[in-house]
Amino acid sequence: MSQTSPVELAMAGRGRIDWASRSMPALQQALQRLLEQGSVAGMRIGISLVLEPKTANLVIGLQQAGAQVAVFAPPDCTDVEVIAALEERRIAVFSDPAANEAENLELARAFLRTNPQILVDDGAWVTRLAHREFPQLVESMLGATEETTSGVRPLRVMEEQGELKIPVIAVNDSPLKYLFDNVYGTGQSCVMALLDLTNLQIAGRRVLVIGYGWVGKGVAQHATALGALVSVAEIDPIKALQAQHDGHRVCSVQAAAPDCEVVFAATGIAGVLTAEHLASMPSGVILCTAGGGDFELPMTFLRAQGEPRNLRDHIDEYQLDDGRAVIVVADGHCINCTGGEGNPIEIMDLSLALQACAIETLARTTEPLVPGVHRIARDIETQIAAQRLAHAGASTEPLTPALEAALRDW
Amino acid sequence: MSQTSPVELAMAGRGRIDWASRSMPALQQALQRLLEQGSVAGMRIGISLVLEPKTANLVIGLQQAGAQVAVFAPPDCTDVEVIAALEERRIAVFSDPAANEAENLELARAFLRTNPQILVDDGAWVTRLAHREFPQLVESMLGATEETTSGVRPLRVMEEQGELKIPVIAVNDSPLKYLFDNVYGTGQSCVMALLDLTNLQIAGRRVLVIGYGWVGKGVAQHATALGALVSVAEIDPIKALQAQHDGHRVCSVQAAAPDCEVVFAATGIAGVLTAEHLASMPSGVILCTAGGGDFELPMTFLRAQGEPRNLRDHIDEYQLDDGRAVIVVADGHCINCTGGEGNPIEIMDLSLALQACAIETLARTTEPLVPGVHRIARDIETQIAAQRLAHAGASTEPLTPALEAALRDW
Amino acid sequence: MSQTSPVELAMAGRGRIDWASRSMPALQQALQRLLEQGSVAGMRIGISLVLEPKTANLVIGLQQAGAQVAVFAPPDCTDVEVIAALEERRIAVFSDPAANEAENLELARAFLRTNPQILVDDGAWVTRLAHREFPQLVESMLGATEETTSGVRPLRVMEEQGELKIPVIAVNDSPLKYLFDNVYGTGQSCVMALLDLTNLQIAGRRVLVIGYGWVGKGVAQHATALGALVSVAEIDPIKALQAQHDGHRVCSVQAAAPDCEVVFAATGIAGVLTAEHLASMPSGVILCTAGGGDFELPMTFLRAQGEPRNLRDHIDEYQLDDGRAVIVVADGHCINCTGGEGNPIEIMDLSLALQACAIETLARTTEPLVPGVHRIARDIETQIAAQRLAHAGASTEPLTPALEAALRDW
Amino acid sequence: MSQTSPVELAMAGRGRIDWASRSMPALQQALQRLLEQGSVAGMRIGISLVLEPKTANLVIGLQQAGAQVAVFAPPDCTDVEVIAALEERRIAVFSDPAANEAENLELARAFLRTNPQILVDDGAWVTRLAHREFPQLVESMLGATEETTSGVRPLRVMEEQGELKIPVIAVNDSPLKYLFDNVYGTGQSCVMALLDLTNLQIAGRRVLVIGYGWVGKGVAQHATALGALVSVAEIDPIKALQAQHDGHRVCSVQAAAPDCEVVFAATGIAGVLTAEHLASMPSGVILCTAGGGDFELPMTFLRAQGEPRNLRDHIDEYQLDDGRAVIVVADGHCINCTGGEGNPIEIMDLSLALQACAIETLARTTEPLVPGVHRIARDIETQIAAQRLAHAGASTEPLTPALEAALRDW
Repeated sequence: MSQTSPVELAMAGRGRIDWASRSMPALQQALQRLLEQGSVAGMRIGISLVLEPKTANLVIGLQQAGAQVAVFAPPDCTDVEVIAALEERRIAVFSDPAANEAENLELARAFLRTNPQILVDDGAWVTRLAHREFPQLVESMLGATEETTSGVRPLRVMEEQGELKIPVIAVNDSPLKYLFDNVYGTGQSCVMALLDLTNLQIAGRRVLVIGYGWVGKGVAQHATALGALVSVAEIDPIKALQAQHDGHRVCSVQAAAPDCEVVFAATGIAGVLTAEHLASMPSGVILCTAGGGDFELPMTFLRAQGEPRNLRDHIDEYQLDDGRAVIVVADGHCINCTGGEGNPIEIMDLSLALQACAIETLARTTEPLVPGVHRIARDIETQIAAQRLAHAGASTEPLTPALEAALRDW
Repeated sequence: MSQTSPVELAMAGRGRIDWASRSMPALQQALQRLLEQGSVAGMRIGISLVLEPKTANLVIGLQQAGAQVAVFAPPDCTDVEVIAALEERRIAVFSDPAANEAENLELARAFLRTNPQILVDDGAWVTRLAHREFPQLVESMLGATEETTSGVRPLRVMEEQGELKIPVIAVNDSPLKYLFDNVYGTGQSCVMALLDLTNLQIAGRRVLVIGYGWVGKGVAQHATALGALVSVAEIDPIKALQAQHDGHRVCSVQAAAPDCEVVFAATGIAGVLTAEHLASMPSGVILCTAGGGDFELPMTFLRAQGEPRNLRDHIDEYQLDDGRAVIVVADGHCINCTGGEGNPIEIMDLSLALQACAIETLARTTEPLVPGVHRIARDIETQIAAQRLAHAGASTEPLTPALEAALRDW
Repeated sequence: MSQTSPVELAMAGRGRIDWASRSMPALQQALQRLLEQGSVAGMRIGISLVLEPKTANLVIGLQQAGAQVAVFAPPDCTDVEVIAALEERRIAVFSDPAANEAENLELARAFLRTNPQILVDDGAWVTRLAHREFPQLVESMLGATEETTSGVRPLRVMEEQGELKIPVIAVNDSPLKYLFDNVYGTGQSCVMALLDLTNLQIAGRRVLVIGYGWVGKGVAQHATALGALVSVAEIDPIKALQAQHDGHRVCSVQAAAPDCEVVFAATGIAGVLTAEHLASMPSGVILCTAGGGDFELPMTFLRAQGEPRNLRDHIDEYQLDDGRAVIVVADGHCINCTGGEGNPIEIMDLSLALQACAIETLARTTEPLVPGVHRIARDIETQIAAQRLAHAGASTEPLTPALEAALRDW
Repeated sequence: MSQTSPVELAMAGRGRIDWASRSMPALQQALQRLLEQGSVAGMRIGISLVLEPKTANLVIGLQQAGAQVAVFAPPDCTDVEVIAALEERRIAVFSDPAANEAENLELARAFLRTNPQILVDDGAWVTRLAHREFPQLVESMLGATEETTSGVRPLRVMEEQGELKIPVIAVNDSPLKYLFDNVYGTGQSCVMALLDLTNLQIAGRRVLVIGYGWVGKGVAQHATALGALVSVAEIDPIKALQAQHDGHRVCSVQAAAPDCEVVFAATGIAGVLTAEHLASMPSGVILCTAGGGDFELPMTFLRAQGEPRNLRDHIDEYQLDDGRAVIVVADGHCINCTGGEGNPIEIMDLSLALQACAIETLARTTEPLVPGVHRIARDIETQIAAQRLAHAGASTEPLTPALEAALRDW
């Protein structure tokens, strides 16, 4: 087993964090404002995001703005170099790539015991844990933010059922998040991660994308752009019709099964691919998850077949009784986080700048938000978009008085 | 001047109307329901839509369902063959391709004097005329439907200003309309119409698209797919950022001007291209409008330069004082309606099925809608989408109890 | 029946010819050279090309350079306005849109009786007729040029079999022709013509392209760009593998048949779609030909089923005994010529500039070419490409002495 | 410094080699034939290819077929895990990732001193070294094969100048190589490697591609597919015109310089990007090489500016005197080999199957080839293409007697 010293790890982590910071102008400006206005000074903030160089920039910026930051990340979404770099700055990191499920749960509990006033969550996993196990903490919280579609969905169910006790800003529901992070970011990086981890070619390959939300759309679009033959399975007829107009074959998972070489589950919903589906798939089919988690795939069934054979980094082969083999990438976890470095830096600049602004909103204790799922303010979004455009050397059409009048005219 | 007999015109019109009906299953099913349930029997319905074979199917179906239908269409959006085919069925058509502005206004007034109880409008032009000049008619109406973004915008302004006196169902605001008609329909057909009318090639051409709403997005996407070098000018930073991520150059009209060969105005807003912009454009620049109307272009300025030279059907050349020439397609009117046969049939099946359902909703006098801009019901949209998927041989993923439970779970 | 006067027709034709000439700088420069150098003064030249505004520019330019030009075009590839405009200039046109097969053959013979010294041919149809029926003419000719893949193929067979008696310059074999005209020109215009003639949508439609030569590649690429689900049938494994890498489904015609909605035959080879194939196709399948001719489709079988029903301009429906219907576009002739205005102007500028240069080469009687199929000189191609780049505002990288040295270095 | 044991390295290498072998049916079949026919039994074969799991399969297969194989790879194109796996099999590997230029040259000389009868070369580097320094070896050789455009170019110059003393089979000149490996393989993997190494986004980025040969075309196409704004600089007007038709901006390097964020040199020619070009580029510009080598970039100038700062794995920043910074990826070496795992497996199956067949041809000592650059036989290509199609579940159109007759008919 190879051994690298903590100092070396931290140095490598620092380098990658600095590289990312160069391309994150919107986050830098939001953090600068937090620092100058002292909005989070002394506040306890818990960050539960995929741990990589971009999110580390948010963590470090919050610390520089005076917050006491604790970090949690599950074993499949963490990075030892980044952990080392954060620990070097005396930030409490609750994350261990080698943790099993029970150990990971203990880490999450320890993280919550730091009593964060604001939680930045991904998949609403820690927020739900807090609601189940830490009612007193929940009562004392200013609120949380949520990064993903997979997290907003259960939060809305909780809200409808009267179970959500805190305000949650659904960063995911900003067009700056779902139109960019989900489509261009996750779409691109999941397809790339598959190519990178397998060294296979996607041109000419039959790929099934389950779900045609923003992530599924992004995966399908990038796979098609690289020459794949994409089928889409989708419950909602309107989204399905859109997939059909985008040039994809649209059918059920069952109909696509006999013919498919790669499956991307992109729904954030448990059990969308079942053992029954697997039964009709060809031997050697490759399964992975885009944006969601391993619960979308029939991992329980597969793991019951016996220990998989590791073929290559992040590539495991399960043998079925009938002689067929199923290949699982990144242990069924979100492929671009576990098997790659996550979304491109510029995309995360948008999402993390939104996170920083959402934290700012929650921290403004004079106007507390009521419990429930909230959207981010429109003018924050507009400002962040303008910052990124400027950074890319692009610009909007100026809004002249004549245009403004035309817009108001009937 | 060529002469064709009314009977020949009607026959040609009928043929094209029949051809379209073959690919409009969703409209046929909606009309069938109106017929069977007698929902519009005896009702006066005024249709103000681009007059072509697809809309004619809505008109005829309403007549068959027992309505008294009157039709209005402006001179740049009408079709003599379709007029002849409708008149053969004794439908009152208020439309003359040779009408000047004043005559067209008179036709619209005559149309409104048929006292329609329900108006199907395009661009809210007749609805606004009725509000200005026919207050008593407006009072007696059940409501209207609106087909376009250009029409919904002023209707919302009217609503905000308390000027909208009737319920209007914004068919345009259904994802089945704006995601399909605007992006795939108008986008595709405007680019095609340009190629068809000019016989030019778009690959390698520098094209400026003003506006990155759904229509602008569609135009930009289809032009890029065919090899154009697209620049996008857009007021809203979020849409502008999206254009940049879609691979377009994003800048102001002024910045794109010196370099651009073709301009598509796709905003529905008056005055987005000005005489000042023209001053920096190269001689021979081609101007056209996608989805909106000639008010987007500097037609007043151009027409003041003297009579244009007609180069080819629907292609006019204006000479500027400084020796440069400006080419205008379809007299600045929406290029795919004036210069082509409008949207593809399948796309209009979606929009017109929505229209038929919106009429059904307004006709249900027992539950009248309040004045204001309304959306179409979600289950109507879902049903229409499913009908079209089935017609295309595609299908959705079945919603199993397990999936339903997963969707409700937190 | 509508009636338009010859003067009106000629005026319309002239307008369209002038419009095209604006975007054909390479042709204009080649014709200018012929004029200045007197290369074709007094020479008899026969042009057998699709008759439309672009080819008319070649015809007129040759006349202006002093040649005696005669023109032939088959009934499905001609244009009354262009005929009128050419006849106004006293050019002999042997073409009648109403001619039946026998009458068309007589027109071709009359055309050959003008004793052309140089033939410009399309599909080698007139060249083969001359070889069969006019041996003395053939003996006296300087040579011919050939525009298409479909024509070069039989000419090469003739050459191999010792039957080709004259030099033929295969304009088609220039990369400036096959890489541009076939891929971007025919590909784009055939897909457009289908959309234009049917008003249908191609997004989401299952399209079978037979043949993956340059035309088939172009059709498949443009159909895919517009959202079609394309299958490709191809004899050659290397081309088939390329189609697969380009993201198309690759299979036999038979395998694609049960599922296909539109068929493009793009091979130039007789009988590639058979009555047997039709037997497995769904009712309502749409057949058309891209770049070749009606001999690729089972027209004999279809015509034997009885008179088709005309549904719309250029759209006929054949009823089969088993109740299914087959729709044929443009009577099975090349869809973009019969049903549209042919290739885009800029594309034809390349092809026709090559034609003008090929004529110049053949006219140089001091260095006669030997019988056989010849290529066009590389420097001519380079010059034409540079002219078009300049016209489009583009430029090449300058070849510095350092680069030249690097290219020669080992 | 991390330490991994040779056994661990070999195990990891073996795993990756096995994984690749699963998707290389054409190579396996070619190697099987060599084994069965004993064609290379006892023969000395020297392999100088990028050392990664796919090429390792060729090396191992040749050893299994009885050849004595030696391997050379330069320091930027090698892989310690693969070296370990090969050495475990007692294959002589002359490659050291830590070698400097002089040491690398010594390794190459040692490799040639194994007296290979057949050389498999990449970039013709070893072949040229042999011609310069090992005349006796050259005299005794059966011949060589060449993998790349960069290598074939100097070999042809050598042939023209009478300096090439052995037959070389230009594997690169097979359409199965240049149409696939160069376009889909290198194009895809270079764009991916950039994204992977930098974690940046390519959508919306201004990318300059120098050279529009097969590799440049592939890079431009993949970058565009992912949303980049691509400019192309190309010396040849025909290729430049093609780039323009493919939707790229076409201009000189100098014209693109002020505006460009990423440069891909894709020419295989020394000095295509100069220090003068750099002078007009914005600070932070990212330079990399696709398919060729660091000689295309101004590395001498950059290295003279002082030691670069390493920002991240394979990412170095050079400071210029004027304060601007230039970022170089993979030290200017071919980005997909140095910074990634090279081409996708399926693509290399084509190239390496061709290599195995080329070796078979050279080994057939009864029919020796004459010195010069040779092409691979057409039937070999066809067979390999058919094997890959079958593996991908695709198939060609059967060549019926009727079709065969139609092809021969005039």
